[in-house]
Amino acid sequence: MDSRTGLPVVGMVGGGQLARMTHQAAIALGQSLRVLALTPDDGAALVAADVRYGDHTDLAALRAFAEGCDVVTFDHEHVPTGHVRALAEAGVPVHPAADALLHAQDKRVMRERLTALAAPVPRWRPVTAADEVRAFGAEVGWPVVLKASRGGYDGRGVWPLADPTTATEQVDRLLAGGTELIVEERVPLTRELAVQVARSPFGQVAAYPVVETVQRDGICVEVLAPAPGLPEDRAVAAQQLAIDLATALDVVGLLAVELFETPAGLVVNELAMRPHNSGHWTIEGARTSQFEQHLRAVLDYPMGDTGLTAPAVVMANVLGGEPGGMSIDERLHHMFAEDPGVKVHLYGKQVRPGRKIGHVTVLGDDLDKARARAVRAARWLREGA
Amino acid sequence: MDSRTGLPVVGMVGGGQLARMTHQAAIALGQSLRVLALTPDDGAALVAADVRYGDHTDLAALRAFAEGCDVVTFDHEHVPTGHVRALAEAGVPVHPAADALLHAQDKRVMRERLTALAAPVPRWRPVTAADEVRAFGAEVGWPVVLKASRGGYDGRGVWPLADPTTATEQVDRLLAGGTELIVEERVPLTRELAVQVARSPFGQVAAYPVVETVQRDGICVEVLAPAPGLPEDRAVAAQQLAIDLATALDVVGLLAVELFETPAGLVVNELAMRPHNSGHWTIEGARTSQFEQHLRAVLDYPMGDTGLTAPAVVMANVLGGEPGGMSIDERLHHMFAEDPGVKVHLYGKQVRPGRKIGHVTVLGDDLDKARARAVRAARWLREGA
Repeated sequence: MDSRTGLPVVGMVGGGQLARMTHQAAIALGQSLRVLALTPDDGAALVAADVRYGDHTDLAALRAFAEGCDVVTFDHEHVPTGHVRALAEAGVPVHPAADALLHAQDKRVMRERLTALAAPVPRWRPVTAADEVRAFGAEVGWPVVLKASRGGYDGRGVWPLADPTTATEQVDRLLAGGTELIVEERVPLTRELAVQVARSPFGQVAAYPVVETVQRDGICVEVLAPAPGLPEDRAVAAQQLAIDLATALDVVGLLAVELFETPAGLVVNELAMRPHNSGHWTIEGARTSQFEQHLRAVLDYPMGDTGLTAPAVVMANVLGGEPGGMSIDERLHHMFAEDPGVKVHLYGKQVRPGRKIGHVTVLGDDLDKARARAVRAARWLREGA
Repeated sequence: MDSRTGLPVVGMVGGGQLARMTHQAAIALGQSLRVLALTPDDGAALVAADVRYGDHTDLAALRAFAEGCDVVTFDHEHVPTGHVRALAEAGVPVHPAADALLHAQDKRVMRERLTALAAPVPRWRPVTAADEVRAFGAEVGWPVVLKASRGGYDGRGVWPLADPTTATEQVDRLLAGGTELIVEERVPLTRELAVQVARSPFGQVAAYPVVETVQRDGICVEVLAPAPGLPEDRAVAAQQLAIDLATALDVVGLLAVELFETPAGLVVNELAMRPHNSGHWTIEGARTSQFEQHLRAVLDYPMGDTGLTAPAVVMANVLGGEPGGMSIDERLHHMFAEDPGVKVHLYGKQVRPGRKIGHVTVLGDDLDKARARAVRAARWLREGA
């Protein structure tokens, strides 16, 4: 507890935009997020009062950071599982715990567990040699999708393999470099969906509406909430799936389940156990933001209302454009002048082409109109004139 | 500009809850509010990254604080007018400027100016001796209301005077202590209203919906948005009055106009030039919060959409209760369990009886239901079991 306020101290490992936005939610709850950042330029380090510096792969730094925290949680999945376990063994409340978090860190472990749970997953296989991938491709049909078990995000760590020759080259190269791999069938998806739930130590689970996530080059560019045209029974099935997974994996905090929608039904793509890009729309678009909900979950507060605040909510990521042209401050002026109703969230990042530097959210009665506004606003912030 | 982000640095003098909530809004805009606080326990100092310490009555401290700020603004009205003017003369962009701010600092100046502008005000008189008050009471009828020209808030600095005898005692005592005074008729009000506008240096003005403010013992306890049962023409007249005053007084930033509604029409009670308790409902209840709007105004960004996000929005202040009983953290658990849809804002303050330690906001379709929920939640947070 913070003796000045009588309220808990949540420590978040990682100082990126998720910690930055979690800090905003913490302030409302009377708290001040403690952040473990790498550098003073990290998005959360720029804005939080209680910032410690250290590497998330350094157990001593993690131990020092955890001192005085009521609970430790994460802005990313890159803390070594053994370190998470060591913290818990030392008596630090860590949420999600190592045994849960592992399923968001290691795709092979996740696929094995989901298969055992009879959750819908693509056909897949662990990979220890190129011939296994060739045999798998022959069985399920080319192309197939090769994935690094650990460390991938935003399209990194994923390689589509068109044919046996490409497969052999790519697999040999990656295995030689020490990358652990799995291979999956390419699912005939019609679109991607995501569903977020938050679960408390008490076991209360709150599910957000199912959203559509629009990807480009492996990066999420838009999120449409609620997912347009999704039949009610399929939406409920997706929420039920996420609730079941959160419970089976003993997740505490947020769980984002990324889904492929296929003609045959839903298939689980990825899991994330933290605030997630697919939930940024909740800041204005849901009665309780994912950031507040994550804090409530890890602190074992009762969960907040997950209902929508408008019939249609669209989030568009702002990606860094090419250098030159108008400054971000000028772009902001123009964007605000064009559309006074757009809500903007900038992460304090240096602009690099393709990097997520912020997002915008638009609420409305009509999804197409809200989407057009969000896309236009995000483009203004990216490219200026 | 912050060289790390390419975005402006706003300095706010004063480290209370208004600066705390403005910091939350600054984060979304890619900024980090710079705060001049008195102590590390100030609500904003607990949560902001860039906190300087110094007294707002110390010109040297103000000058040092302003160094590197793109604009300086205020969390309260207590900076001496001469200091505000000195900063501006030294080239610091200060919003609102001294000549505008004076009308929120000095009730006599405000009443003189509003009278000159033919704005609706109570009958009033400057006070230099008790016999002036007795004569005023004989003219307008007893009771009358004595006010300190400077420094009053939350019911302080306001003394109802029942009769000539009380008047003489009170006025003599206050004048002997050096308090500058005015006296006003007691307006036959049916309720209190408030309207907020934001104005940019460019001159753009955006008006929020008119709200009803419910006072108890001189302290605002609830705000109802929009003001229930207010005829459209009267609402428009109130907004127009606030727009006219902001323009006439050359206000930059937020202007809150506190109004008495009387059988004969609207009468101006007070002015505030900063985010205001009557606008806390805008965090969730308006498309653009007053805190974001204030930043946009002082930075000369185009103003944001002031529209309501729900048909009925109710804010209730959380006042500190008697010591003992459940901790604030336990109260929060119970309140969240009872009503998952309440939004809470705690200010990081030590609890003292009657002190504003936070507020709650409830949105809904029905004002009475939303109000009952907000009042119940605020009571939970105040008193526990």
